[in-house]
Amino acid sequence: MLSDIAALDRDDPLAPFRARFDLPPGVIYLDGNSLGALPRGVKARMADVVATQWGEGLIRSWNTHDWIDLPTRVGDRIARLIGAPPGTVTVADSTSINVFKALAAALRLRPGRKVIVSEVGNFPTDTYIAEGVAEMLGQGHQLRLVSADALSSAITGDVAVVLLTEVNYRTGARLDMRAVTAAAHSAGALIVWDLAHSAGALPVNLSEAGADFAVGCGYKYLNGGPGAPAFIYVAPKHLSKVRQPLTGWLGHAVPFSFAPDYVPAPGIAAMRVGTPPILSMSALDAALDAFEGVDLALVKRKADQLFELFTTAIAPLAPEVTVLTPTDPERRGTQASLRHADAYAVMQALIARGVIGDFREPDILRFGLTPLYLSFADVARAAEILGEVIATRAWDQPKFKARAKVV
Amino acid sequence: MLSDIAALDRDDPLAPFRARFDLPPGVIYLDGNSLGALPRGVKARMADVVATQWGEGLIRSWNTHDWIDLPTRVGDRIARLIGAPPGTVTVADSTSINVFKALAAALRLRPGRKVIVSEVGNFPTDTYIAEGVAEMLGQGHQLRLVSADALSSAITGDVAVVLLTEVNYRTGARLDMRAVTAAAHSAGALIVWDLAHSAGALPVNLSEAGADFAVGCGYKYLNGGPGAPAFIYVAPKHLSKVRQPLTGWLGHAVPFSFAPDYVPAPGIAAMRVGTPPILSMSALDAALDAFEGVDLALVKRKADQLFELFTTAIAPLAPEVTVLTPTDPERRGTQASLRHADAYAVMQALIARGVIGDFREPDILRFGLTPLYLSFADVARAAEILGEVIATRAWDQPKFKARAKVV
Repeated sequence: MLSDIAALDRDDPLAPFRARFDLPPGVIYLDGNSLGALPRGVKARMADVVATQWGEGLIRSWNTHDWIDLPTRVGDRIARLIGAPPGTVTVADSTSINVFKALAAALRLRPGRKVIVSEVGNFPTDTYIAEGVAEMLGQGHQLRLVSADALSSAITGDVAVVLLTEVNYRTGARLDMRAVTAAAHSAGALIVWDLAHSAGALPVNLSEAGADFAVGCGYKYLNGGPGAPAFIYVAPKHLSKVRQPLTGWLGHAVPFSFAPDYVPAPGIAAMRVGTPPILSMSALDAALDAFEGVDLALVKRKADQLFELFTTAIAPLAPEVTVLTPTDPERRGTQASLRHADAYAVMQALIARGVIGDFREPDILRFGLTPLYLSFADVARAAEILGEVIATRAWDQPKFKARAKVV
Repeated sequence: MLSDIAALDRDDPLAPFRARFDLPPGVIYLDGNSLGALPRGVKARMADVVATQWGEGLIRSWNTHDWIDLPTRVGDRIARLIGAPPGTVTVADSTSINVFKALAAALRLRPGRKVIVSEVGNFPTDTYIAEGVAEMLGQGHQLRLVSADALSSAITGDVAVVLLTEVNYRTGARLDMRAVTAAAHSAGALIVWDLAHSAGALPVNLSEAGADFAVGCGYKYLNGGPGAPAFIYVAPKHLSKVRQPLTGWLGHAVPFSFAPDYVPAPGIAAMRVGTPPILSMSALDAALDAFEGVDLALVKRKADQLFELFTTAIAPLAPEVTVLTPTDPERRGTQASLRHADAYAVMQALIARGVIGDFREPDILRFGLTPLYLSFADVARAAEILGEVIATRAWDQPKFKARAKVV
C-alpha cells in the first residue's frame, strides 16, 4: 500500500505544482475549500504593491500600474478557468454582493415574474441575499426553497431566476450545470450559478452550459487570500442590456467625467461598484499565477483519486464515521465530507495533530482535496491519523469540545 | 518669509508625525484627499498578515488572529476619530455599497416617505447609488437633487432621508453638519453623512450632531491604501431596529449556525455582508496607528494655516488662477481647490515637477493639505512651483494635455 502511494506521487503530473505554494511544516492542509493555501508569488507581489506602487507611486499608480483596470484584467484570468470568454468576468466586492447584483439584474430581465428558486441546502449567504432582494423589491417577490431533488418540478412558468451553487458546501455534491440550466431556460427562467466550490477546483464551462450569470469566491480554490474579492460573470447575450442596482461610480460609462446621472458602462464593467481593493485584488492576481499551465481536468482527476484513496482508507471506521459525499465522481466536487456524531471535537483533535479540515453543522467533517498542493502521501497520512483519533477516542476531551467563534 | 516658514515648522506640534509615513524623495504630496500616503507600519503588518497569519496560520487565523472581528475592531478605532461611541461603526465593503445600505435602511425607517434629497454637487457615486436605491424600490421613490443653498427649502415633509457629504470633493466647501441634521430632523427626515473628506482630516462629532447614519472612505485621509475598505456608522437609537437589504451571511446573528433564514445580528454587525477582505483591512488597521495620540483639532488648525500660506502665496497669480474653496475656515475642509482654464495640463506640469495634486472637471486643481505629513516648507515650495509653471506657461505642451485613463 505504501509503495503504491509512493508510485502514485512519483507518477503524478501535478506533483511539481506543489512548489508553487508556501505551506507550513508539520501540517496536512485539507481546508483549501475554505481558505486556499498561500501561493509562493504573493509575498513579493504584496511587498511591491505596498512599498512601490502605493508608497512611491502614490496616486499616479492608478495609471502607471493600471490599477483602474485590475478588476477586469483579473476577471479575464478567472474567465479562462470557468469557460467564459474575455470581457465577461470582473472581480468585485464579495460573493454575497455579487449574488445581489446578479439576482436583481436577472429579475429586471424577467419583468413579469417574481419567483426566485434556490436549493434549501444552498450556502446560506446565497439564500439570505435572495431574501434581501425579494424583500426590497417587495411587490410579491418571493424565494422558493426546495430540495435538490425537487428542482425540476419547482422551476415553473412563474420563476424569474434560479440561484444554485454547483458544488454543495456541506456535502460536496455537484449539480448537473448543463441539465439544470436547460431546465431553467425551458421554463423561461434565467439562472445564476455560484461557483464558490468549483472555480479553480474542477473544469467549469459556463459558455457550454449556457449559464446566464455566475458568481464565485476568490479565497477558496483560487487561493486569493482571506476575504479575497469575488467575481461575477454575465453571459455575452445579456451584457448589452443588463442593469444592476448597486450603481456606483466605477460602473459608470465615464467615471471621471463626474457626470450627475448614472449611465452604465458598456459590458461587464457595469458590474463594478466602488473603488476596487487594490491590495487584496493584487494578492488574488498573484495567486492566479499558480494556475498558469494547469489542466483542470487533471486537477479533478487527481482529486477523484485522492477521494478514492481517502474514503477507502477510512471505510473501516464505519458506522462511527460515514461518507456523505456522493461516490459517483460526476456527482461531486473535490471535497470529502464525512459524518461523525461528535464531528466538531473530532476535527479539533485532528487539527491538534496537524491535519486541518473543518466542521460544518451539525455533524460534518469537511476535507478539501486540493491536488495542486496535496500529495497522495498527505491524504493517506490524514486518513491514518483520523483512524487513530477515532480508535483511541482522542477527540473525547473537553478542550476539543469547546466551540471557537469561527468553526 | 522663508524664516517665518522655518519658524512655523519648528514650532509645529504635528511635525513629529511625519516620521510615521513613508514618502518618496523629491515629491511634495498634495493628494492625500484622493489616496493617503503610506503609513510606516503597513509594510511590516502586511508581510506578517501574508506570511504568518495566512501562510502559516491558514484557516486557523480566523480564530487565532481574530480575523472574524477585525471589521468591528477597526470600526471602533475609526469611531474615535468621528465622535461615535464604540459598537456603532463597522468597516465593510466600499463607500458606495455602504451608501446603499444606509439609504435603504433609512427608507425602511420612514415607510410613508419616498423622497431622497441630496446636493447636486455631491460626489457622483452617492447620487448614483441613490438613483439605484430609488429605482429598485420603484414605488414612486425619487431622488431630489438641489444646490447646497436650497437644501433647507428642499427638506420638506415628504422627505425620508437626506444624503450629504460634509466636505465637497470638488470645492472643499464644508456643510454645517449640526444645522443640516437639525433641519432634516425637524422635517421628520433622517440623514446620512458621507465623511469621505472628513474622517481623519478634521474633528467630526456624529453624536453631537445627532447624525442617523454615516459612511466614509478608508483610503483618503485615513491612509488605508488604494481601495481600502470603507466604514458605516449607525446611531445607537437606530441600532436595535435597523435593517438593510444586503443580507449576507456575516450580518447574520449566528453566521456559523448556517441556519436557513436570515436573522440580523444585533447592533452594527448587521451592516456586515460577506467575508471581510482581511489583507486590505489589515492595512487600514495598521494605517490607523498613525492617528494614535493625534488631536484632530490641531490637524484642522494646521490645515487652515497651510491653506492660508498656500492661497496667500498664489494670490498674485489671479485672475489666471483663482481660489474656489471658501476662505472662512469653518466653511471648508482641508483641501485647497483652485481654478485655471487649463487645469488638467497645469496639474500634469506640476506632477512632472514633483508636486502631486489632482484635477477635477472642468477646471479644478485640487491640493490636499494633510498636516500629518506635510510641512509648511512643502506647501510654500508647492506654491512657488505653481507660480513658476504659470509664469512660464510650462503647462502649455501637448504631453501635459493628453488625458490619462484616470485623472
